[in-house]
Amino acid sequence: MKKRSFASDNYGGVLPEMLEAIWNVNKMHVKAYGHDEITIDAKDQFKKVFDSDVDVSFVFNGTGANVLSLSLFTNSFNAILCADSSHLYMDESTAPESFTGCRLMPLKTNNDGKIDIETIKKSIIRRGDEHFAQIKVLSIAQPTEYGTVYSLEELTEIGKLLKEEHIIFHMDGARLFNAAIHLNCSLSEMTKDVGVDVLSVGGTKIGMMFGEAVVCFNKSGSDNLKYKHKQSMQLPSKMRFISAQFYQLLKDKVWVKSATHSNKMAIRLYNGIKHLSNIEITRTVQANSVFAAIPVEWNDTLLNLSPFYIWDEHTNEVRWMCAFDTEEKDIDAFIELIKKLNQQHTKLRK
Amino acid sequence: MKKRSFASDNYGGVLPEMLEAIWNVNKMHVKAYGHDEITIDAKDQFKKVFDSDVDVSFVFNGTGANVLSLSLFTNSFNAILCADSSHLYMDESTAPESFTGCRLMPLKTNNDGKIDIETIKKSIIRRGDEHFAQIKVLSIAQPTEYGTVYSLEELTEIGKLLKEEHIIFHMDGARLFNAAIHLNCSLSEMTKDVGVDVLSVGGTKIGMMFGEAVVCFNKSGSDNLKYKHKQSMQLPSKMRFISAQFYQLLKDKVWVKSATHSNKMAIRLYNGIKHLSNIEITRTVQANSVFAAIPVEWNDTLLNLSPFYIWDEHTNEVRWMCAFDTEEKDIDAFIELIKKLNQQHTKLRK
Amino acid sequence: MKKRSFASDNYGGVLPEMLEAIWNVNKMHVKAYGHDEITIDAKDQFKKVFDSDVDVSFVFNGTGANVLSLSLFTNSFNAILCADSSHLYMDESTAPESFTGCRLMPLKTNNDGKIDIETIKKSIIRRGDEHFAQIKVLSIAQPTEYGTVYSLEELTEIGKLLKEEHIIFHMDGARLFNAAIHLNCSLSEMTKDVGVDVLSVGGTKIGMMFGEAVVCFNKSGSDNLKYKHKQSMQLPSKMRFISAQFYQLLKDKVWVKSATHSNKMAIRLYNGIKHLSNIEITRTVQANSVFAAIPVEWNDTLLNLSPFYIWDEHTNEVRWMCAFDTEEKDIDAFIELIKKLNQQHTKLRK
Amino acid sequence: MKKRSFASDNYGGVLPEMLEAIWNVNKMHVKAYGHDEITIDAKDQFKKVFDSDVDVSFVFNGTGANVLSLSLFTNSFNAILCADSSHLYMDESTAPESFTGCRLMPLKTNNDGKIDIETIKKSIIRRGDEHFAQIKVLSIAQPTEYGTVYSLEELTEIGKLLKEEHIIFHMDGARLFNAAIHLNCSLSEMTKDVGVDVLSVGGTKIGMMFGEAVVCFNKSGSDNLKYKHKQSMQLPSKMRFISAQFYQLLKDKVWVKSATHSNKMAIRLYNGIKHLSNIEITRTVQANSVFAAIPVEWNDTLLNLSPFYIWDEHTNEVRWMCAFDTEEKDIDAFIELIKKLNQQHTKLRK
Repeated sequence: MKKRSFASDNYGGVLPEMLEAIWNVNKMHVKAYGHDEITIDAKDQFKKVFDSDVDVSFVFNGTGANVLSLSLFTNSFNAILCADSSHLYMDESTAPESFTGCRLMPLKTNNDGKIDIETIKKSIIRRGDEHFAQIKVLSIAQPTEYGTVYSLEELTEIGKLLKEEHIIFHMDGARLFNAAIHLNCSLSEMTKDVGVDVLSVGGTKIGMMFGEAVVCFNKSGSDNLKYKHKQSMQLPSKMRFISAQFYQLLKDKVWVKSATHSNKMAIRLYNGIKHLSNIEITRTVQANSVFAAIPVEWNDTLLNLSPFYIWDEHTNEVRWMCAFDTEEKDIDAFIELIKKLNQQHTKLRK
Repeated sequence: MKKRSFASDNYGGVLPEMLEAIWNVNKMHVKAYGHDEITIDAKDQFKKVFDSDVDVSFVFNGTGANVLSLSLFTNSFNAILCADSSHLYMDESTAPESFTGCRLMPLKTNNDGKIDIETIKKSIIRRGDEHFAQIKVLSIAQPTEYGTVYSLEELTEIGKLLKEEHIIFHMDGARLFNAAIHLNCSLSEMTKDVGVDVLSVGGTKIGMMFGEAVVCFNKSGSDNLKYKHKQSMQLPSKMRFISAQFYQLLKDKVWVKSATHSNKMAIRLYNGIKHLSNIEITRTVQANSVFAAIPVEWNDTLLNLSPFYIWDEHTNEVRWMCAFDTEEKDIDAFIELIKKLNQQHTKLRK
Repeated sequence: MKKRSFASDNYGGVLPEMLEAIWNVNKMHVKAYGHDEITIDAKDQFKKVFDSDVDVSFVFNGTGANVLSLSLFTNSFNAILCADSSHLYMDESTAPESFTGCRLMPLKTNNDGKIDIETIKKSIIRRGDEHFAQIKVLSIAQPTEYGTVYSLEELTEIGKLLKEEHIIFHMDGARLFNAAIHLNCSLSEMTKDVGVDVLSVGGTKIGMMFGEAVVCFNKSGSDNLKYKHKQSMQLPSKMRFISAQFYQLLKDKVWVKSATHSNKMAIRLYNGIKHLSNIEITRTVQANSVFAAIPVEWNDTLLNLSPFYIWDEHTNEVRWMCAFDTEEKDIDAFIELIKKLNQQHTKLRK
Repeated sequence: MKKRSFASDNYGGVLPEMLEAIWNVNKMHVKAYGHDEITIDAKDQFKKVFDSDVDVSFVFNGTGANVLSLSLFTNSFNAILCADSSHLYMDESTAPESFTGCRLMPLKTNNDGKIDIETIKKSIIRRGDEHFAQIKVLSIAQPTEYGTVYSLEELTEIGKLLKEEHIIFHMDGARLFNAAIHLNCSLSEMTKDVGVDVLSVGGTKIGMMFGEAVVCFNKSGSDNLKYKHKQSMQLPSKMRFISAQFYQLLKDKVWVKSATHSNKMAIRLYNGIKHLSNIEITRTVQANSVFAAIPVEWNDTLLNLSPFYIWDEHTNEVRWMCAFDTEEKDIDAFIELIKKLNQQHTKLRK
C-alpha cells in the first residue's frame, strides 16, 4: 500500500529512533525473559517518569496489557465497569472474560465517549450481595475511542469516588501520550496523581514496532504481576527488544515529538474542514483523530485517496486517524479533496 | 553481558537476514492485524513448504503458539497428554489450563525425554466416561526438552495410534528446524506426513526477533483459528514485522543455515568432551544442545567463562545450548577449559 | 417464620406429591449418577411431553441449569445475549462467564422486561469479525423476571430470526409452568414449536425440594451434554431423588395444579388492589407475581404482615410473589390491609 | 434393583433420621439461600464440633465441595497437589481446572493410596519461578479412595510441613466420618488439630439425601466464601433441606451410628475371607470398603448376587463397599458364596 492511510495509527511503520534502539541491543548476548540490564534500565525510566517505585511489565500488545492489568486485582466473581464504546469491550474479543472469569459491565457514555461520574455512581450497586457480580474495577480509556480526553478535573473526581468505594482504577493508555500532549501535563499528573491504580501504556501506536507496558501503582496488585505476566502468555523471551524501545521512548522524550506531531496533524485536518457546510464534526477533536459525518457519496472518492474506517454505517460517520508518519501534505491534499466534494455537493443540492 | 553464553538459544540477538527483512517492510504503510500482503506472502511460503493448503497464524511467543494450538480442538472437559518433562508442562505456568480449561496429563518419559508408544497406549483410558477428563490431544515436542529427536518411525507409529484413537496430534516445534536438520528430512515429512494435526513452529530460537507460527493441518480446527488467535491475546497489530521474518526464513531457507550451524556446534562440543573420564553425557546429542553430568567443583570456573543452566542440582547435570551465533572459538575455548579441569580432577582423585 | 411470605416462591416448602415421590424411591437400592430406572422413566416423561427424542439432564439449581445449557453450544470467544433485567445477568454472579468464558451481553428491555425483536436485530453485529465477541446464543426468560409472559407470536418471531441468523435460542424456564398456564398452551407449543434449542425447566419454584432440568432439543448440543453435566458440578449421585420428583410432576400433571393455583393467587391480589388510588401496578400481571409502586410509608406495616421484596428503592416498587402454598386467606388479609392503608393515605393527602 | 449392592455407598437411600428432618422443616415458610434459622443452627453444630468459629457453606455434591474449597485460596497461576488415585483427579472431570484455572498435579501414592511425606517434599519445587505453576494447595482424601486412613501422626507431619512451606492443607472428607470411627478420634483431632485449612465434609455417603459441607478453618479463605459459593453454582435456594439433615447428623451423632455400622460391615467381610487361599486383600482395610484381587472366573457369579465395581481389569482387583444400609446377612451370604467359589477353585487347580 503506497497510499498514506488515515485508517489507524498501527498501519504505519516504526519510528527511526526505535529501529536504532533495536539495532543497538541486537549486538549483545543477554539473559532472556527480562533478566537483562536493558530491561532494568527501561523500567527505571518508568520509575523516573512517575517519580515512584512502580512495578512495570512489558507485554506484546494492547489486549495483553489490559487483560493483565485487570487480572492483577480481580477474583473471578468480580465485575469490571467499562465504557460501552471502549476498545476493551468492542475490540478485544472475550479475552477479558475468558482470562479473568469476570464480567465486563458496559456503561453508557456521552457523545464524546466518556463515562459521566453520575453513571459510575449509579452502577455501583449490590455490594456484598453474592448473587450479583461484585464490582471491583473501573476501566477508562485516555484518550477514549473517540479521541477525546478526560480533563484532570474529571479524572480527579473519578479517582476520588473510586477510592471511597474501594474500586480499582484502570486506565487504558493505548494512546496515552497523545492525551498528555493535549492536556499539556506530565504523564504522572494524568495517572498516579489522580489515583490510577494500574495503567496500560501503549507503545505500538506511538511508533514502536511492538510492545506495551503495564504500570502498577497500587502495590496490592504487584504480588501477582510476574506470575500473571507469564500465565497470560505475554512474557517475551527476547525482552530486550521491547525494553530498548521503551527506554528510548521515555529517556529522550521521543514520545513528545511523536504525539505532538500526530495531534497537530489532526488539528490541521479539523481546522481545514470544520467550517464546511456538508460535514459535521461529531466528536470533540482533542487527540490524534477526527470523527465526522459526511455524505455517503463522498466515500469512494475519499477512500481512493486515503483509506479510513467507516465508523457507523447508519450515519456515515467516519474516523480519520493521524500518526507520527502523517505528513502535512497528506492532510492538505485530503482537505483539498473534501473541499472540492463539499462545493459540488452544495451545488447539487441547490 | 559480553561473554558468549550456552544458557539458551534465546539469549542471542537476531539473524542479520531478519533485521534486513524488518528494515524493508518498515517503509510501507500497510493494513494491521495481518490483512497485509507481506503476511499473505509469508503464509504462502508455509503452504509451499507443506505442499498443502494449511491454515497459519502468527503469534508472539511459544506459549502462545502451544496454547492457541491446543485450544483449537478442545472443549474444557478434555485432557491433553504431554511429557512430564515438556516445556508445556514445566515452563508455561498454567497458561494451558487457564485458557483452555482442560487438564494437562503428564506422561513419564524415557531417559531421552521421549514418550514411548506403550506409555501413550496405557494412558488412553475411560473414554466416554464423563467422570474422567476426556483425552483429546497428545502433545509432543520435536526436538524434546533434552535436545533429542523422535525418528520418523517413532512419529509414524504415534501418528497412526492417535488417528485410530481419534486423538489430535500436536507437535511443539519450538526448535523444529534443528530436528529437521538432524533427521535430514523435509519439514513436511516430519509433521504432515506422520499425521500431525497442528504444529507450533518456533521462530525466536532459530534467530527471529520474535514470532512463532501455528500451522493447522486438520481443517476441523481451522474454523476457530482466527477467533482463538485474537482471544488468546496473540494477534499482533503490526503483524508485518513477524510475517516478513518468517517469509525470509522460509523463502531463502535461512533456517537451514541457522539450524545446521547450531547443531554442528553442539556436535563439536560433544566430540570434544565425550571421551573425558570425569564427565558423563546424559542424553543423546541430536539437536543443538549437550546435556552432561559434571563434577560440581567445575561449575564456578566454567560458568565464569560461559554462562549455562544447572539442569539438575542433585546430579549436577548441566545443559549447554548452542545457537546460530555460537562460534567455533567459543566451543573450542570451552572444551579446552573442560579438558584442563578434567585433568586436574583425575590427578586429585589419585 | 410463621408468617406467610410474598417474598419468593422458593420460601415455601415442598408439594406433598413430591415428598411422597421421595419417600417411595428411598426404599430402593439403585445405581448412582442417573443410571437408574427412575431416572430413565423421568426422562421418558419429558420425551412424552415434548413428543420428541429430547436429551435431558437433571441438575441441582437454576444457575446450574442455565449455565449448563449455555455451555453446550458455545466456545469461549462467543457472546450470549440476554435481558439486562434477567436472572442470568442480575442474580447468578459471574457463573455464566467463568464457566463458559463467554461474554454476557445485556439487552435493554421494555417495561415488561421483554426484549423487543428490533433490539435483538440491532444487537446482531460484526459477525465474522474476530475482534468482537461472536454472538452465538440469545437467552430469554419465560416468564420474565417481571412475571410477564412472551406471547406465542412473539416467541415465533424471535425463533424465526434466530434460526435465520444461526443463533441458538435458550429459554430460562425457572417458572416455565406458570407461563404455560397463562398462555393456556402446551409446554411444547411454547418451546420446541417456536424453535427453542435448549431449555431450563424449573422444578424448585413449582414445588419440588430441589432439581431443575436441561432439555436439549437441538442435537448439536447433545454430544457435550453428559460431559458438561459432570464438569459443571451439577451431576447428583443420588439422582433418583430429583428424577422421582420430576416424574411425578409431569406424569400426573401436578404442575398444572400448582401453577394454576399460584397464578390465580396473583390475579386475586391484582384484582383486589388494581383500582386503588395510591397504588400503581407497574408490570402486566400474567404469571404468579404482582409488581406495584406503593407509598414508602406503607412498607413497615405491610412487611409486618407478610414479608416481600422492595424491588426498586428509588420508586418503592415492590414484588409480591405467590406460590403453590399461598392461600386465599393470605391474599385477602393482605388486600384488606392495603385497602385500609390506601384509605388513610387518601385522607392524609386531602 | 432389589439386590443389595456393594458398588457404592451412594447406591443406598437415605437414613430415616434424615427423612424425618426433611419432613419437619418442610412445614415452615423460611428465607431462601441459607438466610434461615435452620441453616444458622446447623452451622452452629459445626462450630460446636470443631470448637471454633469456623466458616461453613453447604453445597450440593462432593465435586462442588472440593472445587469450592480449592477456589477459596488459589489464583489461576497456582498448582494443587493431589494423589494420582484421588477422586479429585480421577472422578471429577476437569471441574477443578476449569473452575479455578489451576493445575492439578498428581502425586504418586503408596499401595494404600496415601501420599508419603517424602513425595510431598520432593514435589515442592521452583517456588517464585513464574514459568512454573506455583504450588499453593495439597489435597488429601481421608479416607483415601482405597478406604485407607491416614494416622494422626501422618496427618500431623503433613500439616507441619505445609505450614512451614505456606501451602494450604485441604482434606477431602467425602467419607470423613468413617475415618474418624476408625481412628477413634474426634472430627476436630483429625482436621483442625493437624492443621487442615479447609475441609470437604461428605453428607451423601453417610446417609443424607444430598448435601456436603465446606468447612473453612483458615480465615484467609473466608472472605471469598459466600461469593465463590454462589459463583460455583452450589448455592441451594431451599437450603433448609440440606441444613436440617446436617443439623440432625451432628446434633444427635447420627454419623457415629452410621459410620460405625458401615465400617463394621467391611471388617466382617474382611474377616470372613482374608484367610482364603485364592483371594488377595490388596489394600489395608480401615474404613468401609474391602479391596481384593480375585479370580476373574468368579466375577459373574458374585456380581449376580451383589453388584460391585471391578477396580482394575488387569489384576481383577475388585472393590466391595459397605454403607449404613448393608446388613449382616448380606455380608454373610456374600462370604458364603466366596468360600464356595474358593473351594471349587482350589480343587480345579489341583
